Amino acid sequence: MAAKINVSAQALRTLVSGLFAAQGVSPTDAGTVADVLVWANLRGVDSHGVSRVPRYIELFERGEAKPRADIKVERLRSAVAVVDADGAPGPVALTLAMRDAIEMAGDTGVAWVAVRGTVHTGAIGYYTAMAAEAGLAGLGIVAGVPNMAYAGARGAGVATSPLSVAVPAGRHPHVLLDMATAVIALSRFAQYRASGQALPEGAALDADGVPTTDPAAAKVPLPMGGAKGSGMSLVFELLAGCLTANPIVSGYHAGTPEGRRHRQNATLIAVDISAFLPVPEFVSLVDDTLDAVKALPAGDESREVLIPGERGARTYEERLSGGVPLPAKVWAGLAGQAEKAGLTVPETS
Amino acid sequence: MAAKINVSAQALRTLVSGLFAAQGVSPTDAGTVADVLVWANLRGVDSHGVSRVPRYIELFERGEAKPRADIKVERLRSAVAVVDADGAPGPVALTLAMRDAIEMAGDTGVAWVAVRGTVHTGAIGYYTAMAAEAGLAGLGIVAGVPNMAYAGARGAGVATSPLSVAVPAGRHPHVLLDMATAVIALSRFAQYRASGQALPEGAALDADGVPTTDPAAAKVPLPMGGAKGSGMSLVFELLAGCLTANPIVSGYHAGTPEGRRHRQNATLIAVDISAFLPVPEFVSLVDDTLDAVKALPAGDESREVLIPGERGARTYEERLSGGVPLPAKVWAGLAGQAEKAGLTVPETS
Repeated sequence: MAAKINVSAQALRTLVSGLFAAQGVSPTDAGTVADVLVWANLRGVDSHGVSRVPRYIELFERGEAKPRADIKVERLRSAVAVVDADGAPGPVALTLAMRDAIEMAGDTGVAWVAVRGTVHTGAIGYYTAMAAEAGLAGLGIVAGVPNMAYAGARGAGVATSPLSVAVPAGRHPHVLLDMATAVIALSRFAQYRASGQALPEGAALDADGVPTTDPAAAKVPLPMGGAKGSGMSLVFELLAGCLTANPIVSGYHAGTPEGRRHRQNATLIAVDISAFLPVPEFVSLVDDTLDAVKALPAGDESREVLIPGERGARTYEERLSGGVPLPAKVWAGLAGQAEKAGLTVPETS
Repeated sequence: MAAKINVSAQALRTLVSGLFAAQGVSPTDAGTVADVLVWANLRGVDSHGVSRVPRYIELFERGEAKPRADIKVERLRSAVAVVDADGAPGPVALTLAMRDAIEMAGDTGVAWVAVRGTVHTGAIGYYTAMAAEAGLAGLGIVAGVPNMAYAGARGAGVATSPLSVAVPAGRHPHVLLDMATAVIALSRFAQYRASGQALPEGAALDADGVPTTDPAAAKVPLPMGGAKGSGMSLVFELLAGCLTANPIVSGYHAGTPEGRRHRQNATLIAVDISAFLPVPEFVSLVDDTLDAVKALPAGDESREVLIPGERGARTYEERLSGGVPLPAKVWAGLAGQAEKAGLTVPETS
């Protein structure tokens, strides 16, 4: 393993915020993007953290993302809205969308807010967790450019579109499910290659569409549960992409340059628990359920039975006090961008 | 394979409706239950069809289901409601719930209707398909008594809780995803035993909590995608059970007789597509997406790439004209119940 650089979350947030501001993003929006990316690192979801900064900058430079997008929120009905992102970074558009969903749900009980035409949403669990932090349940889906096999087909058919659900708890950390519809994500193929480990069976196809466990030959992730995972991904495209009149899968397979361009749509849902029962009562029922699951006999007695999001909540506490470990290469990239933008590079350990 | 009896869908519907009426269910409600069960057979989902009739009768006889339940619909806010099923059969409670969700969504754009305390929902795809038939998108989840392993634990931890999403299409049949969160359902273990075939890897645990491919030793289905499938099942319990103040998982593991009693909660969601864009425009975008997926290169060239629900839609047409094939044993059970109730047993071929 290459050496890791250790940076405090606060320093990392300041740096990332500065990098986005240097691209012309407003200070508020730059802070939002930094919050979302650093949150992913704090939770241990490093694939969705600050390592993505160069990719955002590349999208700004190509004009595929806009630092000062003309975001429009259309309230279509009392419980549904569309955030037309106009190429704003995902964290800006989705934070706005979930804030809107929480506000609308406070009135109607549930709200469905769609996000049309954003780029890189970041870790979608951030937005559903916003709802849980506010005492609501949050649900979210994202749909993007095909990078996963469709069951029974070769090549990239649909996207590894994630589902996230967050539910507030009391004695336990909030339940936070955040899962791709692939067996394992594309980004993890590289980790397997680096470690020389074979991929699990049924996780990947090679360039010819043949299943492989060789990480060097693996090209396309396979859907979780076969037709179940790719079916979920397909309906997410219909619910996020077609419903916002901005489909991605059909354009991608038409093979036009516009169809191949990176873009994403999303749907966020907030449910006002207090419409059903007092939140403390709900939280107590959730805690009892989590106690029952935690008390199940472990398959391997040396390993704890975990609730979705429990490990991430622990990593968050550890990294908030102990700092965020980053691969030297990721750090060098950020420091290089900072110097180019005339920003102070924070100290590391 | 044992010989199959062939019955027309209409005759089967009349018979099942009569059997429920004989239990004291109102003619309208008996017709609804018959519609839902026969629909599952027509779609080829025989595990959720008329073979379940004896189980409903058993639940009525034990007082665990009520033929004349006092169902109450509480409109909590403009977009959320709870159907308190009072032990009504699932088809009665969930049909009412989706009808209500469709009506509410017509006003607010989206509606979330929870069902508290029903028994056996039947195939949940029936209710989401109701929405698609009406030009809306439908989503549904069910949560029940634990019968599936939780990732990392032994024994039954959570339920094989299904997710269904239905989206209207035009040139194609409506998209209808209806999937359990297990790799393969408990009911299919018996099919593997009967055929002498080994189970797939990673589908089941034996009585000691050890993974097995021997269908004779298999006791507990494993979740699809490990922590993903059991995480989905857990959040469905929180969203359907805890939100209706009727949790099942915690009571089950407390081990009380009440905690072990069969019961189910559900949540149905309707989304009014016309709030977002004209339905014909949406349907056309869906059709384009389905065309693109159907045109993907097949992994096995002798096999067609299928859309969720496509096979079921074909089976429906075949069985609607050609009759529903039933195992002789299932038919004998129904005919026996019919004679006991003084009903005419329809002709078969």
